[in-house]
Amino acid sequence: MLLEKGITKIRQEKPLIHVITNPVTCNDCANVLLAIGASPVMAEDPAEVTEITQRCDSLVLNLGMLNSLKKEAMVLAGKKANQKRIPVVFDPVGVGASSFRLRAAKELMEQVRFTAIRGNASEMLTLLHGEGREKGVDASEADSFGDDLPEGVKKELCAFSQRTGAVLMLSGKTDYIVSGAQIAMVKNGSAWLGRITGTGCQLSAMLGAFLAVSQGKFFQAAVSGACAMGISGEIAEGSLRTGEGSGMFHVRLLDALSLLDDKTICDNSWVLEEGK
Amino acid sequence: MLLEKGITKIRQEKPLIHVITNPVTCNDCANVLLAIGASPVMAEDPAEVTEITQRCDSLVLNLGMLNSLKKEAMVLAGKKANQKRIPVVFDPVGVGASSFRLRAAKELMEQVRFTAIRGNASEMLTLLHGEGREKGVDASEADSFGDDLPEGVKKELCAFSQRTGAVLMLSGKTDYIVSGAQIAMVKNGSAWLGRITGTGCQLSAMLGAFLAVSQGKFFQAAVSGACAMGISGEIAEGSLRTGEGSGMFHVRLLDALSLLDDKTICDNSWVLEEGK
Amino acid sequence: MLLEKGITKIRQEKPLIHVITNPVTCNDCANVLLAIGASPVMAEDPAEVTEITQRCDSLVLNLGMLNSLKKEAMVLAGKKANQKRIPVVFDPVGVGASSFRLRAAKELMEQVRFTAIRGNASEMLTLLHGEGREKGVDASEADSFGDDLPEGVKKELCAFSQRTGAVLMLSGKTDYIVSGAQIAMVKNGSAWLGRITGTGCQLSAMLGAFLAVSQGKFFQAAVSGACAMGISGEIAEGSLRTGEGSGMFHVRLLDALSLLDDKTICDNSWVLEEGK
Repeated sequence: MLLEKGITKIRQEKPLIHVITNPVTCNDCANVLLAIGASPVMAEDPAEVTEITQRCDSLVLNLGMLNSLKKEAMVLAGKKANQKRIPVVFDPVGVGASSFRLRAAKELMEQVRFTAIRGNASEMLTLLHGEGREKGVDASEADSFGDDLPEGVKKELCAFSQRTGAVLMLSGKTDYIVSGAQIAMVKNGSAWLGRITGTGCQLSAMLGAFLAVSQGKFFQAAVSGACAMGISGEIAEGSLRTGEGSGMFHVRLLDALSLLDDKTICDNSWVLEEGK
Repeated sequence: MLLEKGITKIRQEKPLIHVITNPVTCNDCANVLLAIGASPVMAEDPAEVTEITQRCDSLVLNLGMLNSLKKEAMVLAGKKANQKRIPVVFDPVGVGASSFRLRAAKELMEQVRFTAIRGNASEMLTLLHGEGREKGVDASEADSFGDDLPEGVKKELCAFSQRTGAVLMLSGKTDYIVSGAQIAMVKNGSAWLGRITGTGCQLSAMLGAFLAVSQGKFFQAAVSGACAMGISGEIAEGSLRTGEGSGMFHVRLLDALSLLDDKTICDNSWVLEEGK
Repeated sequence: MLLEKGITKIRQEKPLIHVITNPVTCNDCANVLLAIGASPVMAEDPAEVTEITQRCDSLVLNLGMLNSLKKEAMVLAGKKANQKRIPVVFDPVGVGASSFRLRAAKELMEQVRFTAIRGNASEMLTLLHGEGREKGVDASEADSFGDDLPEGVKKELCAFSQRTGAVLMLSGKTDYIVSGAQIAMVKNGSAWLGRITGTGCQLSAMLGAFLAVSQGKFFQAAVSGACAMGISGEIAEGSLRTGEGSGMFHVRLLDALSLLDDKTICDNSWVLEEGK
């Protein structure tokens, strides 16, 4: 279920990823993309996003710290990406935190066809149900269904994926990747990933890179992206010594991503397929 | 003079802190809040800040890289926080650096009741005197009165605290915390805290978390926040080896904050009370 | 060809550097300036930039994530800097990536006299030729001419330097510094500098500090800045152990900059002068 030679292809093709994200995580997103071999470009003025997207291999739209101008830019960039037929990732950060973001998410989903949508449980449920109420924007244990995503939610996710044509990723202790009727569960990861900011945004940015080299194998690309982040989190956690915490975990996560190869992903991935 | 079980409460209650700050330090502020167990949310569009603040446990307003739209958002969020009776922290970053920021600070102080105001010496004096002229926005030795805050300044700070109803924190080599006639001096800290950007902003964000769980013990919450940052700075400095400097200090500071507990604060705090 | 006691002067005079840059790299730029002993101030609202620049010792303008308001602020700040006769650095990030940035770059070059202009090969060629097409905004091997900057390009750079009066720095595997007919090549550096985001922006910010203490020796200041970054990159790379990558390189780079002194620069600089 992994994308064959995903990391190798990213390091060879160096896909250019246009990321429209937020000031909290833009530095991390850029560094994560560089670490896995992709090339980031950040631009968010409506005056230039169309031209920037035109040159890119995929587009990532992130709702964090949304403002009106950025929403306009996202619509423009998204339409250009659709026209150019390059993958588009949507990360509905904090979509349940304000009606402004929820309206923007709905507008974006009407105007732009997404290749993949990634969020934590509360964000994905807000998108599913068209309404929400959530606490903060960072993943927490409470946001995660763990191993027990209710059957009803799974069905809703499958229906949502079929309706939108997007691969869905519900991130948490277990990452659920849904494409039509197909469901994969990635069990790699570390609790530390929820103790630093922006690992969700970073994963969404990485998805942009995996999708860009996937030649249409979007489900496998998403599974590989989730494994890449989860395994790097495991490596980072495993390297922590006494007295080390969030700061060093962040450093080691980037270290692991920059040294990651397909063999490491293949040997360490822990993926279950629904019903198997 | 410390807030009893401050860190424990933050880690248990996971207060949601709405931070309106600047692009230079927003990533650090989010990571520091997560490290001590709080949950950060960043939002600054006037279209959503009221709704975001409505769901939060405290609000932090930071003048760094101010612009007109953000000032409008700060007024809206501040009024909502006052209405909801949650703590509001004000960090007048660079208030003496431009008349634009000074006017904004005055407007904010007229429109919003602050629970706590934290700045370096030049920022606090600018607020006190309504005018200023300062060098840069990062703390430097020149900004600090060391152990010798003039008696006149102490009186002015007490009067300012009484007039505004806010706990004041003048950060420097010694942190002075003033609430009405009460003055505490926190002598924990490290010179390295002034050699990386944003430790003041991070302390202000942390104050938001301590105030949120303080049940009205704002003075103690502020003292605890200053100790938490100072002691973590000491731990970080103590861990540096030959060849390590600003980069590793930043990492170790976050490590220390993420591992901090109340016993460590209690055992290492160095707090003097004025006149005792 | 190095600025005598450059780092010593920066640490003594603590020049105040006004940096108008982008959210991706502003934190790194501030930390790098603090690491070498300068004092950063970030401000980008047209309502305050003139007043901020008025108090500064140099100004750095960076095109990354440009928007219309920031461009207006850059023109205002640049004119004030020219009027006050303090050095101005221009970093045309991604100037070939959109016509919006290219137009802005041309407008800035018409309205503001630059002391130094620093970019990677594609950015500098775009400025030279008034048109461009580039991939991403981060330096890559493809962006670099290595040791083989064609003679024609050298001549164009000299003519461009003479026409604009600016010292030019074309960054890559070798950094070319051009002032009128004078050309220096700095061969210090590390491939890791291209694997984390923003090292170009950081170098531009550092140039602001070196120029501020140079008393008009702009060419030497630029050479010293390039050496400072290149040598710190070498030190950082040399410190990496098995399992360490982008994350730790970033930390070690800042460590090295914060411990850098003039003797280390002098002993390790690898500078060739054209024709010698």
